Amino acid sequence: MGKPTRRDLLKGAGALGAAAVVDGALGTPARARPRDDRDDVVDVAVIGAGVSGAYAAWRLLGPEAEDSHILRRLRRHRRGPLDVRLFESSERIGGRLFSVTPPGMPHLHAELGGMRYLNNQPVVADLVDHLGLRTALFPVDEPQNLVYLRQHRFTQGQWGDPQVVPYELPAAIRGRTPDDALSSIIEGFVPGASTMDHQAWDKIKPTASADGRYLYDTGFWNLLLEAVGQEGWAFLHDGFGYGSVVSNVNGIEAMEASVADFVGSPPPSYRYLLDGYQTVPEELVQRFEAEGGTVRLHHQVRRIGRDRADGEDVLVLDLTVWPDGRPLRVRAHHVVLAMPQRSIELLDPDSFLFTSDQFLADLGAVVPRPASKLFLGYDRPWWEEIGLNAGRSVTDLPLRQTYYWGVEGEQAGADPANRNALLLASYNDLSDVEFWNELLTRPDRLAPVAVTRPPRPMDASAPGTLVDEAQRQLRELHGPNARIPEPTSAYFQDWVQDPYGAAYHFWQVGAKSWEVMPRMRHPLPDANLYVCGDAWSTGQGWVYGALSQAELMLEEHFALPRPTWLSPGTYLGA
Amino acid sequence: MGKPTRRDLLKGAGALGAAAVVDGALGTPARARPRDDRDDVVDVAVIGAGVSGAYAAWRLLGPEAEDSHILRRLRRHRRGPLDVRLFESSERIGGRLFSVTPPGMPHLHAELGGMRYLNNQPVVADLVDHLGLRTALFPVDEPQNLVYLRQHRFTQGQWGDPQVVPYELPAAIRGRTPDDALSSIIEGFVPGASTMDHQAWDKIKPTASADGRYLYDTGFWNLLLEAVGQEGWAFLHDGFGYGSVVSNVNGIEAMEASVADFVGSPPPSYRYLLDGYQTVPEELVQRFEAEGGTVRLHHQVRRIGRDRADGEDVLVLDLTVWPDGRPLRVRAHHVVLAMPQRSIELLDPDSFLFTSDQFLADLGAVVPRPASKLFLGYDRPWWEEIGLNAGRSVTDLPLRQTYYWGVEGEQAGADPANRNALLLASYNDLSDVEFWNELLTRPDRLAPVAVTRPPRPMDASAPGTLVDEAQRQLRELHGPNARIPEPTSAYFQDWVQDPYGAAYHFWQVGAKSWEVMPRMRHPLPDANLYVCGDAWSTGQGWVYGALSQAELMLEEHFALPRPTWLSPGTYLGA
Repeated sequence: MGKPTRRDLLKGAGALGAAAVVDGALGTPARARPRDDRDDVVDVAVIGAGVSGAYAAWRLLGPEAEDSHILRRLRRHRRGPLDVRLFESSERIGGRLFSVTPPGMPHLHAELGGMRYLNNQPVVADLVDHLGLRTALFPVDEPQNLVYLRQHRFTQGQWGDPQVVPYELPAAIRGRTPDDALSSIIEGFVPGASTMDHQAWDKIKPTASADGRYLYDTGFWNLLLEAVGQEGWAFLHDGFGYGSVVSNVNGIEAMEASVADFVGSPPPSYRYLLDGYQTVPEELVQRFEAEGGTVRLHHQVRRIGRDRADGEDVLVLDLTVWPDGRPLRVRAHHVVLAMPQRSIELLDPDSFLFTSDQFLADLGAVVPRPASKLFLGYDRPWWEEIGLNAGRSVTDLPLRQTYYWGVEGEQAGADPANRNALLLASYNDLSDVEFWNELLTRPDRLAPVAVTRPPRPMDASAPGTLVDEAQRQLRELHGPNARIPEPTSAYFQDWVQDPYGAAYHFWQVGAKSWEVMPRMRHPLPDANLYVCGDAWSTGQGWVYGALSQAELMLEEHFALPRPTWLSPGTYLGA
Repeated sequence: MGKPTRRDLLKGAGALGAAAVVDGALGTPARARPRDDRDDVVDVAVIGAGVSGAYAAWRLLGPEAEDSHILRRLRRHRRGPLDVRLFESSERIGGRLFSVTPPGMPHLHAELGGMRYLNNQPVVADLVDHLGLRTALFPVDEPQNLVYLRQHRFTQGQWGDPQVVPYELPAAIRGRTPDDALSSIIEGFVPGASTMDHQAWDKIKPTASADGRYLYDTGFWNLLLEAVGQEGWAFLHDGFGYGSVVSNVNGIEAMEASVADFVGSPPPSYRYLLDGYQTVPEELVQRFEAEGGTVRLHHQVRRIGRDRADGEDVLVLDLTVWPDGRPLRVRAHHVVLAMPQRSIELLDPDSFLFTSDQFLADLGAVVPRPASKLFLGYDRPWWEEIGLNAGRSVTDLPLRQTYYWGVEGEQAGADPANRNALLLASYNDLSDVEFWNELLTRPDRLAPVAVTRPPRPMDASAPGTLVDEAQRQLRELHGPNARIPEPTSAYFQDWVQDPYGAAYHFWQVGAKSWEVMPRMRHPLPDANLYVCGDAWSTGQGWVYGALSQAELMLEEHFALPRPTWLSPGTYLGA
């Protein structure tokens, strides 16, 4: 273990995947007229080519844009097609959707960011269908899968046996799975919770209470401690797999998220993108470019100011263009910030939006949460030799969750003789992220983003020390019968790194999401500036949150009609 | 519990203590000639009035300065006394030393930051003696004190009974206290460790290894998992009281810190300042002003550049002066950054020091660690009614550590009839900080530091929701026999808030402290700029670390002789 010679073996493996992504998005395709960034005033500048920015840019040039009186006025003024530009500081499209294809497994994709969506998220399902992207069911808990807690190993099928589960639980949740336990606790605070949809949650949020306290103003961890004590909380924290879900965030928002995403009734089912989740923003951007939209990678927005031109207020973007560090000024009639909290905080503090107290308060109404993922590729699905096929095992070791991701030869269109297989060895959050993060040897891992140097390319390499420790924990989790070969590839991603700042966000205690979300979509009443993304949504950490906020922003502030591909009556949130 | 009417009762209580501190430090005393900040070129500008900045400023005008050829040259050039200025962005002296005196307890001080020093830290003990400040023994573990883990309550005297301790421990540490267990594990990696002093640790750091791995390049959490497994690690994490100590930081540095600060042999003893730890930097600043030094509170350094004046290189500080937000430019021959990691990161990214890759790497060689404290005042020492007098109890509840701080009437010079008493209800770190932090209702708690507004005054108020939850956990920790009255005062401080960024720092895995520390003291070979403070020391989180690095910096780069009050032969680190 830990032979220094292995350390660099797996380094840089991730760069391959990232580089492949760049092709086809760096330039503007031939049929669109290339625009000069110094042209007069851009109609709409979208900042950030994650999924919400890609979606907003695409919709602004889509068929429904014909019916928007706001966009029609802009087109008339320009005497031509709308000038919409999508600026992205990094070298790739996708943001926190980041799909890497390991060597020898062309039909498998390591989803280092977002990895799935839910059947109760129609805006995602409908969009994916509309774009013609292939999907399949994403399995989670299988009865034969393992649980390894406090050094006791048992199967998911044995949660019901209090003799086996090593926690001294109160009677109310004894003999239950963590999912059932969480669901029953939430029902204790909000009767009927487990069958409520997002619309029903939004209705009760301002008034739901327990013992005279508003649930939005009470920490979820507090409520859980009161309900089931420290051992009950530890059981949920360890057994549920995500520490974030039971941490001290906004009580009612945590309940909604738990029910909608994990423990609702009937249990939610998940789907994933067969060609990688990153193909969603990539496809959106391709269609945006095909309609004449302009994409600028390596364009980092540093400062946002305001000015007047031709008697009209305009927004002024000061950018740095990498790799040469050239300054660039772009003026725009409208600006969409499709950026998470930390990216906005990294803007120059002199940016005019920071003069608004309300905006600063809303910016801080969500808290960043770290999470990281480690994928390991193998020459065979060794887990099948001990009866494990799909879904996840759970442990209180820093690995936390291990997903048996797939076998190359079992994918549609793949060579059936190819037994290379991919494992999501660790999906972990909160302090466990530190465990892995500390094993990175990237030299400037914690250095601040200095504007004097270009943003680093995405680097999902995993050093040998980190892989060795993951292998040790995988052996412990799977017990003496598992024969685990050396991995053939490794990819690690920690989303706390700037400019992301978090894997996902949660509403803080006291935040009124139903008031903050509409304000964030148009934070300064006298400026044509809009914020969208999952950070300020009721689908935090999901593409669903990003798309629903982007769609509401477009409908409210660009007068875009709802797209025809979206199921009628879809509720998109407050 | 949670009656909304109580919520504001305790708010703002902390502001009193903070305001009292400001008097006497805001202005320059009459006998010193006030300097104009626009005067030609300052000799030395010290940034940050925490203990390392106060110490450096004081030493630069102290008696030993006569013997420094560097300072002599500056004085000759000026034809008068040295112009040393201490700039502080906040309204108070002390940084992370913050002592608040609760109402009705004039002889007790809630130490919201640093609270004690060790008998193995001579630079602190000698300085405190030299300044004539009063100290006393600080008790920690008493056999009758409580342990409450996994909902099992026992006493510190019962650690030896495996039937009582609710962890399935490996034989190597079964029946041991967490301290003894940790000490024996460290001995397993570094034989003789428990009696080693700082100098001995520094000698072995570059080469100490286990299984072919360098210990400085291995995470401590990893090593502990290998040595005693997940239950052993959980026992140490929960029972030791500090999660930080067993997290995945630099292995050899974590071992040194554990031995030096907690589990060495003979066991370390602690002392505290009878009039509050904050009196140390306050006394230093008063003496600095008495020698003609200039203190500028509310002066926030924003950017550091360089320029030439009279044929010499000078450093250029761009400041904002609060509360009016006036810009100010100060030029200096030498600049001392007595600031922690986050404060330096918050400087304008155009500051010239960020162009050095080495500096950025060194800046990121330590990781920030959150910790918070909650003090509660009562009308009586209710803990004495259940046989507890001093020292701490430990729990895995988010309270983590509770210290029975003191009774007013038992302090020297106090009214013996006054039974008001102070409790350090919670001293917690890592994810437990979030538990409490989320219960704060300060509106802009998480908003970024925007330079368009003044730094917030220190606010140690604790809202009623937070106090109610602490009371609930105190009742659970102390059991049914404890009768806990309502608190009369409450003070909470979370040091993650900007500009501090952390309560303390740890060396990251792979960092070579013995190379980074000397570099940080003079990070850019061609600039008269110096960094000191505890963040880059081998006494992280202690005044010891701050003073030893400041002293080494002064000796190396200002040619100051060692002060006569310091015990001969004192080792100050690499």
